[in-house]
Amino acid sequence: MEPERLAVGVDIGGTRLKVGLVTERGEVLRHTVSPTPPRGTAPRLVEDAVVEAVTAILVPADDDQVCGVAAPGGTVAVGVAAAGFVDAASGRVVFAPHFSWRDEPLQERLEARLAGPVLVDNDVNAAAWAEHSIGAGQGEHNLLVVNLGTGIGGAHLIDGWLYRGSGGLAGEYGHMRVVPGGRPCECGNEGCWEQYVSGSVLRRAGADLVRLGGPEAEALTQACRGDADALEGEQVTQAARAGDPASIALLAELGDWLGTGLADLTAALDPGAIVVGGGLSEAGDLLLAPAAEALAGQLPGRGHRPVPPVRVARLGARAGMIGAALLALHETPSRHAGP
Amino acid sequence: MEPERLAVGVDIGGTRLKVGLVTERGEVLRHTVSPTPPRGTAPRLVEDAVVEAVTAILVPADDDQVCGVAAPGGTVAVGVAAAGFVDAASGRVVFAPHFSWRDEPLQERLEARLAGPVLVDNDVNAAAWAEHSIGAGQGEHNLLVVNLGTGIGGAHLIDGWLYRGSGGLAGEYGHMRVVPGGRPCECGNEGCWEQYVSGSVLRRAGADLVRLGGPEAEALTQACRGDADALEGEQVTQAARAGDPASIALLAELGDWLGTGLADLTAALDPGAIVVGGGLSEAGDLLLAPAAEALAGQLPGRGHRPVPPVRVARLGARAGMIGAALLALHETPSRHAGP
Repeated sequence: MEPERLAVGVDIGGTRLKVGLVTERGEVLRHTVSPTPPRGTAPRLVEDAVVEAVTAILVPADDDQVCGVAAPGGTVAVGVAAAGFVDAASGRVVFAPHFSWRDEPLQERLEARLAGPVLVDNDVNAAAWAEHSIGAGQGEHNLLVVNLGTGIGGAHLIDGWLYRGSGGLAGEYGHMRVVPGGRPCECGNEGCWEQYVSGSVLRRAGADLVRLGGPEAEALTQACRGDADALEGEQVTQAARAGDPASIALLAELGDWLGTGLADLTAALDPGAIVVGGGLSEAGDLLLAPAAEALAGQLPGRGHRPVPPVRVARLGARAGMIGAALLALHETPSRHAGP
Repeated sequence: MEPERLAVGVDIGGTRLKVGLVTERGEVLRHTVSPTPPRGTAPRLVEDAVVEAVTAILVPADDDQVCGVAAPGGTVAVGVAAAGFVDAASGRVVFAPHFSWRDEPLQERLEARLAGPVLVDNDVNAAAWAEHSIGAGQGEHNLLVVNLGTGIGGAHLIDGWLYRGSGGLAGEYGHMRVVPGGRPCECGNEGCWEQYVSGSVLRRAGADLVRLGGPEAEALTQACRGDADALEGEQVTQAARAGDPASIALLAELGDWLGTGLADLTAALDPGAIVVGGGLSEAGDLLLAPAAEALAGQLPGRGHRPVPPVRVARLGARAGMIGAALLALHETPSRHAGP
């Protein structure tokens, strides 16, 4: 039997660096999670952290069923998912807000240090590829993926492959303006979509409620022990699941903004299905039911056209890491990891 | 010498039915313009008008340099551009607001009556194809086209071909919501982009100014002889060209909305260039300069990425007709019009 091909997937997130050894079917054989180097870290030090973690993951574990994985010669492809504007064709990070990088040749540098093929792509593209390959977007050749994390990341698969735009910068849906003169955004504009629905928005809205006090904030105040600054978005979701009306209402409000933006994107792109991922998507139907309602109610031509189904992502927080590995396998088809 | 291939292009617009005999290089050998059947006309009667005009255009003129064009056998392909939601794969008009059509098999019916190959596509797709082939979008493989007429029509070429979406309904940029609770739109929503920039918006804004009166409305009041209802958008553009400050300001306001929406679309789609067509685009730099400024000023990641150039369309009011003919030639490559 042909040994299954393997690749290393790396996800350089805002808070966590995830590295995993992944099979071509998307199974994670082993993986590590470490803190991402802090904001503003120089590229060289981030590369150090990636090289160290990739090297470590390739050392066979005692109970390793995979032979030859760590064989010298660097035949294991490495896929790297990075937040920010990435030109996948060249593997350059054009602009990474977290590290304040500008036009870093990450792929070239990592290839030199890892002595093997490296692919660098945007983290949401990688996650979308994973959902398309083995997750909630399987079988859909025109798939829109919206990732609700700190902000909104987007990806679009057309004819079963990632659409990148003319300069590799497509999919910045989070910075579409949904409210003129609206909430300020880190990008320098006001009223960007990601200021109305994202994991950060849920956390902030919950914290505002705690600060206002009053009976309706009771559940959330308990959840964070009265410290609004300490409230996590996940706690709002948990409170909503437990039936807290204020938390349910917050998620419904965010879901309405989600559906509104999805209606805009569907008018423009006409996808066959939509997958919503990222931390906030864990709220499930509390978020997606109001989103689907807003989408169906605001889509132009409604009644005369299909409304794309909105599905929750299946691969959770490992989607970027898995997708990066699968992309590396897809893009370096002739390389085999096995002996 | 191989005779140049020919096709008939038909543009069923909101007010005019244009039919032309077009060469594969996009030259219009002859064409006719007649009024479009009125709102709500049954499909059969519109088909009658199209069949009549196509048949007439194929009768050789006295001074005709083109031999064999009208030869029996129906070997001249016919391309039809229609306003509304068109499923180009099947040639069905899914939804045409002007005629109140629903799911009309226009291509099938016209093929039966014209006894030859017919292609039906959305009018803006056809115009975009013409601009890409022989107009302002030549050489740009990732081209965004925005057509400012009664509303906003959109088209997107990816890898040099029209992107249609999963159901052929992509490109409805005009119904992206730019103002929550904003101006009401015929689509049933509020705040759609086309309610802030389009030919209709210019006409309405000019008429409002005339109704308000006052010294700043003087030029426009003269242009329409005091009858605000009679003011045409073109008159506002002419007044602006002649230096009327109020008309210049109106076009600048519309240009700002245009640039804002183009920034949203560029964030999402990352096109290599943008072509702005339709009647309103005839305002040229009075509209496009403020639009380019707003685009450059609002694009996320600005300073770290190229800003797509915004160009005015070159083919004017015949773009849809020419593009329909060129699409018909492109899609029926084996058919020759010549003897």
